[in-house]
Amino acid sequence: MLLHTFFLLSILLSTSHASVQDFCVGDLKGAEGPAGFPCKTPATVTSDDFVFAGLSEAGNITNIINAAVTPAFVSQFPALNGLGLSAARLDLGPGGVIPLHTHPGANELLLVSKGHITAGFISSSNNVYIKVLKKGELMVFPQGLLHFQIAAGKRNAIAHAIFSSANPGLQILDFALFASNFPTPLVSKTTFLDPVIVKKLKAVLGGSG
Amino acid sequence: MLLHTFFLLSILLSTSHASVQDFCVGDLKGAEGPAGFPCKTPATVTSDDFVFAGLSEAGNITNIINAAVTPAFVSQFPALNGLGLSAARLDLGPGGVIPLHTHPGANELLLVSKGHITAGFISSSNNVYIKVLKKGELMVFPQGLLHFQIAAGKRNAIAHAIFSSANPGLQILDFALFASNFPTPLVSKTTFLDPVIVKKLKAVLGGSG
Amino acid sequence: MLLHTFFLLSILLSTSHASVQDFCVGDLKGAEGPAGFPCKTPATVTSDDFVFAGLSEAGNITNIINAAVTPAFVSQFPALNGLGLSAARLDLGPGGVIPLHTHPGANELLLVSKGHITAGFISSSNNVYIKVLKKGELMVFPQGLLHFQIAAGKRNAIAHAIFSSANPGLQILDFALFASNFPTPLVSKTTFLDPVIVKKLKAVLGGSG
Amino acid sequence: MLLHTFFLLSILLSTSHASVQDFCVGDLKGAEGPAGFPCKTPATVTSDDFVFAGLSEAGNITNIINAAVTPAFVSQFPALNGLGLSAARLDLGPGGVIPLHTHPGANELLLVSKGHITAGFISSSNNVYIKVLKKGELMVFPQGLLHFQIAAGKRNAIAHAIFSSANPGLQILDFALFASNFPTPLVSKTTFLDPVIVKKLKAVLGGSG
Amino acid sequence: MLLHTFFLLSILLSTSHASVQDFCVGDLKGAEGPAGFPCKTPATVTSDDFVFAGLSEAGNITNIINAAVTPAFVSQFPALNGLGLSAARLDLGPGGVIPLHTHPGANELLLVSKGHITAGFISSSNNVYIKVLKKGELMVFPQGLLHFQIAAGKRNAIAHAIFSSANPGLQILDFALFASNFPTPLVSKTTFLDPVIVKKLKAVLGGSG
Amino acid sequence: MLLHTFFLLSILLSTSHASVQDFCVGDLKGAEGPAGFPCKTPATVTSDDFVFAGLSEAGNITNIINAAVTPAFVSQFPALNGLGLSAARLDLGPGGVIPLHTHPGANELLLVSKGHITAGFISSSNNVYIKVLKKGELMVFPQGLLHFQIAAGKRNAIAHAIFSSANPGLQILDFALFASNFPTPLVSKTTFLDPVIVKKLKAVLGGSG
Repeated sequence: MLLHTFFLLSILLSTSHASVQDFCVGDLKGAEGPAGFPCKTPATVTSDDFVFAGLSEAGNITNIINAAVTPAFVSQFPALNGLGLSAARLDLGPGGVIPLHTHPGANELLLVSKGHITAGFISSSNNVYIKVLKKGELMVFPQGLLHFQIAAGKRNAIAHAIFSSANPGLQILDFALFASNFPTPLVSKTTFLDPVIVKKLKAVLGGSG
Repeated sequence: MLLHTFFLLSILLSTSHASVQDFCVGDLKGAEGPAGFPCKTPATVTSDDFVFAGLSEAGNITNIINAAVTPAFVSQFPALNGLGLSAARLDLGPGGVIPLHTHPGANELLLVSKGHITAGFISSSNNVYIKVLKKGELMVFPQGLLHFQIAAGKRNAIAHAIFSSANPGLQILDFALFASNFPTPLVSKTTFLDPVIVKKLKAVLGGSG
Repeated sequence: MLLHTFFLLSILLSTSHASVQDFCVGDLKGAEGPAGFPCKTPATVTSDDFVFAGLSEAGNITNIINAAVTPAFVSQFPALNGLGLSAARLDLGPGGVIPLHTHPGANELLLVSKGHITAGFISSSNNVYIKVLKKGELMVFPQGLLHFQIAAGKRNAIAHAIFSSANPGLQILDFALFASNFPTPLVSKTTFLDPVIVKKLKAVLGGSG
Repeated sequence: MLLHTFFLLSILLSTSHASVQDFCVGDLKGAEGPAGFPCKTPATVTSDDFVFAGLSEAGNITNIINAAVTPAFVSQFPALNGLGLSAARLDLGPGGVIPLHTHPGANELLLVSKGHITAGFISSSNNVYIKVLKKGELMVFPQGLLHFQIAAGKRNAIAHAIFSSANPGLQILDFALFASNFPTPLVSKTTFLDPVIVKKLKAVLGGSG
Repeated sequence: MLLHTFFLLSILLSTSHASVQDFCVGDLKGAEGPAGFPCKTPATVTSDDFVFAGLSEAGNITNIINAAVTPAFVSQFPALNGLGLSAARLDLGPGGVIPLHTHPGANELLLVSKGHITAGFISSSNNVYIKVLKKGELMVFPQGLLHFQIAAGKRNAIAHAIFSSANPGLQILDFALFASNFPTPLVSKTTFLDPVIVKKLKAVLGGSG
Repeated sequence: MLLHTFFLLSILLSTSHASVQDFCVGDLKGAEGPAGFPCKTPATVTSDDFVFAGLSEAGNITNIINAAVTPAFVSQFPALNGLGLSAARLDLGPGGVIPLHTHPGANELLLVSKGHITAGFISSSNNVYIKVLKKGELMVFPQGLLHFQIAAGKRNAIAHAIFSSANPGLQILDFALFASNFPTPLVSKTTFLDPVIVKKLKAVLGGSG
């Protein structure tokens, strides 16, 4: 027994600090940097830190798009800090639509968990890649490209989006244009949309300017 | 109409090559390099390249672990090439076990799609993080650490594992030790397991040496 | 003299291969991969490979936007291969507009080389950051976010955009929506724009569907 | 109107934290780390943070090299934090010289903005790549290699250097050797320069030792 | 002398902040993040920060493996912070064994400094790569794969391991299984080892559960 | 036995491609790219690929520097391909000098294997960090900075340099200036060295121009 005590002591002493960065559960109160949040002290990390239940329940789809996006990004699930991974749950009612959007900071892999979904993206070359996806199928959306998901058929659908960053970002086209204070004359000039149309959509979506 | 023709010509000419690398669907017949496979010619890429149905069906769990892992890595789903993402489907029968294993090249995010799963990992500091996960819950397994998944309760379970690499690798501990030709004396010396036990497990799992 | 010959021989022999990857001028005929093109044989590389004159002349702005973008991406300037850098020249006539667009794969740093430019971008949080830039000023546009540039005042303007990738991509919003074959019903559903308006813009910009 | 309120609420709530890291304007008072500075609180960031006017004016070239380098690195322009980009302005009087130097942490892309510049670099294989560049031309200088810029002809010249890092570093050869306290015997031993010459240059450039 | 003063002033002013990140010696009291520790103030950094003597002495091999691992990771040698490099010293008595282990976060390059060492690793495909290494020979162990080192012959041996990360981690298989509180029934289920054997090894190595 | 056959079949089928990229031993005859060489077919890789004996013997120090550098970069040791690691052996006779040089693409960690070595580097801020290193000590040289090693005392010394890239590059200052065809007037203009001195050193080191 003496030997193994020596053994353990020598190894444990020499490696005691080495394993800290197996993981770096984010301390959201710390100052975020380009690589993410500071790490919680490893000694305070428990199994609970590594588990997230926030995607278990459906998002609220009582809205004009009949759909909801629930994120599990690093701000919701701090264990993702520094891991280059995150997720989101999409809930689509019948006819539900996730409008055109991009993730400025990540590639996306979509997994259909229920129902059928029509999904597509547009490339820099203005090619359009569209498919009707069934339960269990995966689709790739490369980083930063405009894409959408629509419930196909008249049933509900659920999907899980997975991202190659703990903080993929989410820019919804209509929100950027019509729910912001982006001045109408500039929206019109940079999109060729008539100012009247811009103003009308701003009224619906809550934008100003 | 003249104007827009000029417009399109000038823009399309100047950007014709710029968008190639929106994506790099892998040409599996090309020579793989450290960053992945060469890209298929963009002109031959269609919507079908971006969709993978191989995880739609359950893996065959008629085996001693009552479980199966079906990968959607770059070799199965070439659209993942260079994207830093891949996936796998886990099927677990009642009592099914995914034995201790590591992914040498990726962090993992597990999503329970059906049933309950007991999952856990061990850190470099020899701390053990174990949780019983319910449908819809996520759990993180940091890169390269030993982890496992077991069906909790007496029901089937399904999960989807997501990885932060298109080629995460998969080293199953028992296979590395007992289904390989790792010489029994060396297995014994480097694990403290009795050679008799090593030989017995080699007989079960198909190893030699 | 004998000594230095020995010296040179011993050093040159031992390091002859080591310096190959100082640079990797792209061989555009080779198969592109996730990290870029194969390298030209270093022995065939000359000073000319490292210089690009394609941004010296103004782009053709005889078009509806009264503006032009001329890229110096890896496809135009193969010496950028693997260096994480590229450039483009923007020419704006009086009132010229670079419409809303994103670079899916790079951050941008804009340098105004002549005249005044009104430029802006919209964040994921739908905040709008707009400034009138003078000659010599720099502005940052983070990766993947919608942004624009407009000639301010009634004079010509020139700017140089610099990107954090040899292949930043360029997705022009109006082209993605209205110069592609993205089906009008889907455009309408995912943007809330009236199909009549979509069809009208498609007619102008050359889209179909 | 009720509907869109629900809509906005559900989306805004769920994504409120997700977009933080669209950008990470550096807080220079925070503790720098390997990836850069901590981010300013996004709520305090304004358009002004993304614009830098420090390269608008010529650097002071009243010095022995008849030239000046004005940096727009992360320390001068904190919006570059984490973006993998920075810039510098070179001003060269007639005959002005930017002496041999390296950027230890970045590739460089040089854009000649005015006049003619003779520029060159030396590779690890001791090949020398030199060109006379005209206004509007670009030249690449791979990371860490010795390079220089000289005003060609008898006119002033201006150039902008762009770097693949927010903090490229700048090691000027003569300053490293002769403006430092690098002991003369060691300078001599490691460069084969006569100690008398070393001392003479130290006297001119302000070195000691 | 006036000129050079002007010269120095102009250059020193303009580049004074630019060089900070040549290095980022870790401040271990600061909050660690995904990219490492905050940097010590450069002004307080001296030559001593860049040198580490902790591998000069043999580790204590009075233990059951007759071997010791002494790390020079970022926690022991803070100058490695952010550099993507670290080291460790292996001391092996006659018959000494570094048991099967992985480095979850780094590739390894082993240099035999004294004696002969039998070393090997097992790939994801369950192939075993084993060699007897002599003094001065190098061997590669790819990231995250199980590997071991054993003193060959009856002499002492010393080796230095080099890692592609400042914090490579170290998961020793037997410690993970038998020196932790990983519950015996779960160890048994996920390794196929008999619970009696598991309990016996736990008794030797100090595990519980 | 039937069961384990099923087991192996199901697992082996599903993971057969997944493990390819555990390693990517370079095929030096293939076309190098920004990330390295194409991989050798894994089936042809043997234990021998992972071992390199080229640093076992002393380099030839019969030369004016009484020293030699023997590299184990990817071109000499193809198993390093894509791993972010390489090595070199330094042999120093009494008074031997490795002249000022940089590694444009890697950080360095020096391990003194025999004797005493005076080593140092100069930062971008022109600070000089010098230490006399004893056997077993480590010193860090950050990427791209000028540094040197000199045998301290009158004995031979050996060191091993480790790099954070498989292809760190090596630019020896005197070779870049005086063993190349860098035109003497340009060397003089960009270093402030008298042309007479430049020509003299070119004569010794084999340069021209």
